[in-house]
Order: sequence, then structure tokens, then C-alpha cells
Amino acid sequence: MTTYPAPLGRVIQELSKLPGIGEKTAARLAFHMLKGKRDDVNRLAESIGKLRQEMGLCRQCFGFSEVNPESDGDTLCIVCRNPERAEDTICVVEEPADLIAVEKSQEFKGLYHVLQGTLSPLDGVGPDALRIRELLERIRRGNIREVIVATNPTVEGEATALYLSKVIKPLGVAVTRIARGLPMGGDLEYIDAVTLGKALEGRREI
Amino acid sequence: MTTYPAPLGRVIQELSKLPGIGEKTAARLAFHMLKGKRDDVNRLAESIGKLRQEMGLCRQCFGFSEVNPESDGDTLCIVCRNPERAEDTICVVEEPADLIAVEKSQEFKGLYHVLQGTLSPLDGVGPDALRIRELLERIRRGNIREVIVATNPTVEGEATALYLSKVIKPLGVAVTRIARGLPMGGDLEYIDAVTLGKALEGRREI
Repeated sequence: MTTYPAPLGRVIQELSKLPGIGEKTAARLAFHMLKGKRDDVNRLAESIGKLRQEMGLCRQCFGFSEVNPESDGDTLCIVCRNPERAEDTICVVEEPADLIAVEKSQEFKGLYHVLQGTLSPLDGVGPDALRIRELLERIRRGNIREVIVATNPTVEGEATALYLSKVIKPLGVAVTRIARGLPMGGDLEYIDAVTLGKALEGRREI
Repeated sequence: MTTYPAPLGRVIQELSKLPGIGEKTAARLAFHMLKGKRDDVNRLAESIGKLRQEMGLCRQCFGFSEVNPESDGDTLCIVCRNPERAEDTICVVEEPADLIAVEKSQEFKGLYHVLQGTLSPLDGVGPDALRIRELLERIRRGNIREVIVATNPTVEGEATALYLSKVIKPLGVAVTRIARGLPMGGDLEYIDAVTLGKALEGRREI
């Protein structure tokens, strides 16, 4: 960093802390900021500077939520506030970013619950470290008909799905798991055997 | 962007304007900013926000320079201010980032001159659009012994080097060109023919 003038070096250093951004990429981005439109750079700085003040986790689903200045800093998110969403279905995901991914599919019209991780006993992450207690409270409180478990198809995600099914079913609520199968545009020849096995297992009449 | 809460969407939108950053990468970076250390995010925003105020082009060499608050906003860069640099040698580069690249090599102890581009008649970039006039003034003023032309080994860079040689030599100053050849760690088998040709042409006794 010593080769850079201090203000430039600071930007490069801070950018380098971002995931997937090494010093070379950081330098390229910083040079662009020096040469590009001044307004763009200022808007970028401002938007990043406000990000952590203006964003929080939704007090109901724990997904990302704008902190609503017009309602006293309330953090009920845009999905939870929408009266048109089906309140009897909850889609459970691991992370706030997963919620956004499901929203983009435009296939789900219910509500969400973000666990903030997965069960991972080896890392010391048990049910108490996740938002499972809050999920069970929501289920007990409302008239929930179905809980769709959309954790990732990984070892931890599957284990978490199994655990959720075990604790939710006794409450008289259907627990479903999103389908594992071939990704659209995928190729049987190149897909891994486990996925192909799941795709066969999950076959449906056409 | 409509899927994202507004403050998050703004960060993603602004990040997407950076070179090589698409919406997916921008979203990944923004999610990291939401989950990572708050201090890091604030430092990043602050450093970017100050960048354009605190950085300018050096009034002598036109490389990047910190705007020195202790000297009334003067923009003489750290290289030009260093009394230990050899004042009789000027290395000419295209862009401020190239100056930093040469500095990193630690092989050059003279001064620089940044053209701010290359001659490109088809794009309407003639000698007047570059800092060539200022370079000639520097040469006329001081006792310059050698001008090293370190423009890129591209068509435009070579043309600019030729032009500079033509206008500087009459002033009685040696004009040299950095060597074109095999990059260190390169492989004869895979190097392009033009580079290999230049490497042969530029061979030196060992």
C-alpha cells in the first residue's frame, strides 16, 4: 500500500477486505473511482455509509428490512407488511439473501422465516442459536397451514430441515421440503450422482 | 432492484456501476457489508467519500497526488517532492496507474510524466489532448538527460512513443523505450509471435 498516496491507499485497503476482492481488483476499482464520474463515487460512498443505519432485520421474519423512519424505526419488512401475502404459509430459509432469492422466483406468495444459519453441532450451532424458537411461536400463534423448508441442499441444510420437521409436525402443521433435482438448463451427463438420484426419487407424473 | 429493500438496493445499484462488478457480485458485496463488521463498512464509506476531495493530479507530473492540506492544497506528488529522485531522467507513462506500476518495480529513481492517454487520431486524440506540451516545457526548462518512454506496447502506445521521440530528440535529449520481450516466467511455446520477434530483436549480450 505504501506505493499509493494515502487517500487512495485507504480505499484500496478497505475494498480489499470485501470477499473476492484482492489488492489488484481493489486498485482497479479505486482507479475507476478516481477517473469516473464524481457524482457516482459520492453516491456510492453515501449509500454504503447509510446502509447499516437504514437496514435491520425484520422483527417478525428476521429477513433484511428497511428501518422505517415514518413508523418510529419499526423493522417489519415489506413482505410481512403486505396484506396480500398468504399468512397461512411460511417459507423457512437460512439467510436473508435466500429470502431475496425466493422472492425473485415470484413463485411464493406466503410469508418467510429466516433462521440466520443452520444447525451445525460441530461448530456449536444448536437450535437455540437459530431463530427456531421464534418460528415455533409464530406457528403456535397463527393459523399456519404449511411450513415450506427451503434450507440449502447441503448436509447442514438437510439436517436442519429434518429437525424442523420433527419439532413442527407435532403442532399439526404440514412441513414440506423444496424439491431437489436437475437445475433448469442442466445436463444429465454432467450432473452429480446425488442430485440425479434425488431427481429420480422426486419424479412426478406428467 | 425492486426485490431489495431500498437502502440495500441503492448500494447494489451503485456497486454495479463499477467495472467488472455485475448485479450478482454487487449483491454479494452488499450482503457482506450488512453482515460484516460495522466499523469496516463505515471506514469503507468514509474512505470512498473522501477520495475525490483528497486526491488530485500532481501539478508537475500529472500522476495521482494527495492534495496536501498542510501546503494550501498544493498537489505536488510524493515523487516530485522527493529530493533524492534523479531530476535528469523522466519516465513517460500513459496513465497515473502506470506510474504506480513502475514505482512498484523499484527499478526507477527518476521523475515521471503522465500523458493522460495515448495518441489516437481515429478517436480524435491528438498531441494537444495529452500532456505533451507540459513535457516539452519540463525538458526545455531543466537539464534533462534522458526521457524513458514507458507507454504500453500497443499500437497507440508505440505510435505515441515514436511521436515523442520525434519531438524530443531535437531538444538534444536521449529518448529510450522500455524493452519489449518475454514476461518473466513466460514460456516460449505459448508466447505470441510478435512478442517473440521483439524479444529476439532486443537481445543483449550476456
